[in-house]
Amino acid sequence: MDLGNIVNELVAAMQAQEDRGTVASYIPELAKIDPGQFGIAIATADGRMLAGGDADTGFSIQSVSKVFALTLALGKVGDQLWERVGREPSGNPFNSITQLEHEQGIPRNPFINAGAIVVADVNLGGHQPRVAIGEMLRFVHYLSGDDSIAIDEAVAASETATGFRNLALANYMRAFGNVRHDVDLVLGNYIHQCAMEMSCRQLALAGRYLMLDGRHPDGGRVVSPRRARRINALMLTCGHYDASGDFAFRVGIPGKSGVGGGILAIVPGRASIAVWSPGLNANGNSCLGTLALEELARRTGWSVFSPLEEGD
Amino acid sequence: MDLGNIVNELVAAMQAQEDRGTVASYIPELAKIDPGQFGIAIATADGRMLAGGDADTGFSIQSVSKVFALTLALGKVGDQLWERVGREPSGNPFNSITQLEHEQGIPRNPFINAGAIVVADVNLGGHQPRVAIGEMLRFVHYLSGDDSIAIDEAVAASETATGFRNLALANYMRAFGNVRHDVDLVLGNYIHQCAMEMSCRQLALAGRYLMLDGRHPDGGRVVSPRRARRINALMLTCGHYDASGDFAFRVGIPGKSGVGGGILAIVPGRASIAVWSPGLNANGNSCLGTLALEELARRTGWSVFSPLEEGD
Amino acid sequence: MDLGNIVNELVAAMQAQEDRGTVASYIPELAKIDPGQFGIAIATADGRMLAGGDADTGFSIQSVSKVFALTLALGKVGDQLWERVGREPSGNPFNSITQLEHEQGIPRNPFINAGAIVVADVNLGGHQPRVAIGEMLRFVHYLSGDDSIAIDEAVAASETATGFRNLALANYMRAFGNVRHDVDLVLGNYIHQCAMEMSCRQLALAGRYLMLDGRHPDGGRVVSPRRARRINALMLTCGHYDASGDFAFRVGIPGKSGVGGGILAIVPGRASIAVWSPGLNANGNSCLGTLALEELARRTGWSVFSPLEEGD
Amino acid sequence: MDLGNIVNELVAAMQAQEDRGTVASYIPELAKIDPGQFGIAIATADGRMLAGGDADTGFSIQSVSKVFALTLALGKVGDQLWERVGREPSGNPFNSITQLEHEQGIPRNPFINAGAIVVADVNLGGHQPRVAIGEMLRFVHYLSGDDSIAIDEAVAASETATGFRNLALANYMRAFGNVRHDVDLVLGNYIHQCAMEMSCRQLALAGRYLMLDGRHPDGGRVVSPRRARRINALMLTCGHYDASGDFAFRVGIPGKSGVGGGILAIVPGRASIAVWSPGLNANGNSCLGTLALEELARRTGWSVFSPLEEGD
Repeated sequence: MDLGNIVNELVAAMQAQEDRGTVASYIPELAKIDPGQFGIAIATADGRMLAGGDADTGFSIQSVSKVFALTLALGKVGDQLWERVGREPSGNPFNSITQLEHEQGIPRNPFINAGAIVVADVNLGGHQPRVAIGEMLRFVHYLSGDDSIAIDEAVAASETATGFRNLALANYMRAFGNVRHDVDLVLGNYIHQCAMEMSCRQLALAGRYLMLDGRHPDGGRVVSPRRARRINALMLTCGHYDASGDFAFRVGIPGKSGVGGGILAIVPGRASIAVWSPGLNANGNSCLGTLALEELARRTGWSVFSPLEEGD
Repeated sequence: MDLGNIVNELVAAMQAQEDRGTVASYIPELAKIDPGQFGIAIATADGRMLAGGDADTGFSIQSVSKVFALTLALGKVGDQLWERVGREPSGNPFNSITQLEHEQGIPRNPFINAGAIVVADVNLGGHQPRVAIGEMLRFVHYLSGDDSIAIDEAVAASETATGFRNLALANYMRAFGNVRHDVDLVLGNYIHQCAMEMSCRQLALAGRYLMLDGRHPDGGRVVSPRRARRINALMLTCGHYDASGDFAFRVGIPGKSGVGGGILAIVPGRASIAVWSPGLNANGNSCLGTLALEELARRTGWSVFSPLEEGD
Repeated sequence: MDLGNIVNELVAAMQAQEDRGTVASYIPELAKIDPGQFGIAIATADGRMLAGGDADTGFSIQSVSKVFALTLALGKVGDQLWERVGREPSGNPFNSITQLEHEQGIPRNPFINAGAIVVADVNLGGHQPRVAIGEMLRFVHYLSGDDSIAIDEAVAASETATGFRNLALANYMRAFGNVRHDVDLVLGNYIHQCAMEMSCRQLALAGRYLMLDGRHPDGGRVVSPRRARRINALMLTCGHYDASGDFAFRVGIPGKSGVGGGILAIVPGRASIAVWSPGLNANGNSCLGTLALEELARRTGWSVFSPLEEGD
Repeated sequence: MDLGNIVNELVAAMQAQEDRGTVASYIPELAKIDPGQFGIAIATADGRMLAGGDADTGFSIQSVSKVFALTLALGKVGDQLWERVGREPSGNPFNSITQLEHEQGIPRNPFINAGAIVVADVNLGGHQPRVAIGEMLRFVHYLSGDDSIAIDEAVAASETATGFRNLALANYMRAFGNVRHDVDLVLGNYIHQCAMEMSCRQLALAGRYLMLDGRHPDGGRVVSPRRARRINALMLTCGHYDASGDFAFRVGIPGKSGVGGGILAIVPGRASIAVWSPGLNANGNSCLGTLALEELARRTGWSVFSPLEEGD
């Protein structure tokens, strides 16, 4: 299997695609992005990096950041987190508030907005948002080995409709006592975390610990093997909002998408993959990104649901 | 790793457990079962069979049958099935009717009751239930290499409250045109399929095609690799009703449970596992069965979310 | 106030209307009706009858029958009925099943389909449907003083989609024990009750006991004053499905609509009114019927929400 | 009918009641109120005032204020208000957010919190809350003829859990564009309006325009007869949250309750009634207040659903 060749062919195929979905419009700053872009980067377990297309262009990782935020929060409070956030797929859009009403302010999982806001509340602790954001940036710098990753302040400042929805979610959970700090500070943390700008290359590097059963490629341990598997499990069951089942069905590997058009996907023991294309499908996931991952999985045989054979 | 040893220790540990959950009471015939039983059988990819406890006692496989029914239906109508059934976790109890109202009679996935009734409608075709049931039995005989597997007619006759709920679901979907044959015939097929009696040993054997990427151990092909992976994916995201996310999180391998207390679990390329213990937890899944699989996964390192290393 | 004059002008105005709504299509027999019809009949408390348009044409009263069925059931079991049916507006379409799931099989009120099926279960008792239907017909003959009112068997035989939905509702409540007799018999009773054919004249006569605080015009007592008021209250809050609030707002008098296009409306102490026009609005209520009642209320000053002055 | 006598007997009966419900606890300032209080005041159409018990003790009118706020908003924008707020009972608790998600940010009616927040947004206009509150106070002074009515600032300052829920509701509707001004200002207006302190006597006086078909007792017109009737209709169908149907059934007259324990009830052409007792029932309505109105209606024959006869 010549992975470099596959990447090149994928890039060509994606660039030829007509239907690219629709760029998210509810964050004005994101709506300006040229939809004609596509990037892919694959960091392999044996230390190679294969990249193609716009793999070095920065984009707003948005909800992909929820993976890193969850990892940090588990480091702070461990399994106590699960008293405040569930681990089940939601069966609802990413910003639904209905489920919270029926389940006493406990979000279904840490990857829908409500759950990620609770995670942001945990990560905030009693500090100012800039402290929590600083910690997040240092963590991502460490994971990717790249200290140039930063917040796009224009994106952070640009939230409107989503801003109000998130204010609604946060205040609603505050009423149940499941958001414990000042709502404005919690959302400040959350919004800045989502506004991290990364390229496919940087994102694929940052995700390596999840393909390596929790180890950093430098040999250090980021999380225990058990925790790494569990984060991968959550990505598979909950990583694509109400299209998570479909993504598992079609692609078959854990992944987390963001409305900026990025997806981080993990093949345990094999690869950490980042794809990016700004156009979204009806479920709010990158149109070309999903397609590229489906094709990549088909070409490589990568799937957590198949026997992996040597040499593939 | 001495798998035989692990199985023996697991059986001893499970037999010592105090909290065994509650035997399902809504099917009177199932309520009579002695909750003090536990069985496990593991068919490995290299052809071994390891069994322990009550591995040869027959039990009602109930919803585990949905895996075989789905495989049959895909063989008949292929991907057209997905026009009538979704592939998303439901976020609702197994017999919920609410979701159908909001989504025009299209069940969320083939493993909740509503979805399995649509599958039973497909498998029925224009025939009498005994034709469809005969076909199902022949298929399971072939998969397991055991022609003694049969329907427990007393269980089939014993459905009451669930019977009325299923009548409600079926008629509701009939109103939307998503059940196409006579409701009584469709449910006759469905109820008899659920009333198949199998032992852990028989069930583990029947599941081998899903660990072998769709091949029968005799070398024949049951389904394509792609379809085998997709069935595994559905088991992971939807196989345990509204505890599917938790099962993926804690156990990390595809599984399908039934209210009879059985669970079929698949480690691709490694093992087809059946566990059984009649007591259920609050989500309707086998209490000891889930616990045993979690412990087995921990001891063996089996997880679709970790790098599988040689020799494990 | 010259009521005869008002009636004549109303008929002329309605006949000139262009937008007449859509005839219900899910009961094939009803779909054949000419939408160009409009009838009105007003039985006054002082014994007059004013009628116009197609006031003597028979139509399927459908859900208007729920008023008479409720009256009968309260006569049988009194306030015990309210342990099985609520008294709150539903906030959902007439045939919704979602609410039942959240409220343990207790329908919100006796005028949505689910509630009316429980009422039909009460009225059936342990008998055959023809017994219950015979009782219903005798009751309506007595109320209207007209023994010619009968069931339209073609309509009763013509239910399909609604038939399946009602089967779903009835089986669902049977699972909760809130339908107690054989579902087919209960629905046999329900469907025949709905298939009563009456003219506006007959219907206005049958409704007189509700304007007379429970008395029959012949001096006999049909129900107590308290019960008459309570039935009127339910008509006002629940009589038009999810448009009940709007009807109360615009018309201001208790009313019960049916998908056959009829509405029975009660002005306590003043008038029992029947209007009929087959075209329905988006909420499933007669388009011209609602308009005519709104205009009639405006012209007469009839409203339960205004001070009634002498001479009006 | 000796109304004074009835009032005296009612007061005695209510003071003897053991079960007084539970004082609302989520607004700390309200939780301090002595539950052993009961007051009633009846302003009749012929100009009498009958009062008893704690009729002159001030209490927080809370949601009763929604009646006056609705009247003001209709005066500002007329029927355009109904493009932003519905007129249907909600079938949900007073502070539910679920319905908003399913109905695009349009609250079901102006008497649930979400609807009242839209009304507060309309009444705020582009001004500061104190301007809107000043206008509200002047309006209530005029209606009641009592300039001493004021805001209880301690109550206004005391909202916590409800405060967060209302922030959630307001931000959620802001996301849909159905709240148009700064959320903090809108809620400032809303919370202060709810914190008006009035006695039963003052409240009964303030409600007289609704019994007089829109006229002020001084002869001026507050609203048109049509609008008065419509406000009464909304009170009947939506005035008691998810117990509105039950209140209409048991009491039979339009009413609006508040969590402070007050209820304003209107008998068109007869009486404007205020009752107050701080203990609430499970639906959040005054326990003794509801009971007293039911008994008053029984003793007087007052009901919008019965023929009112002269001399009663």
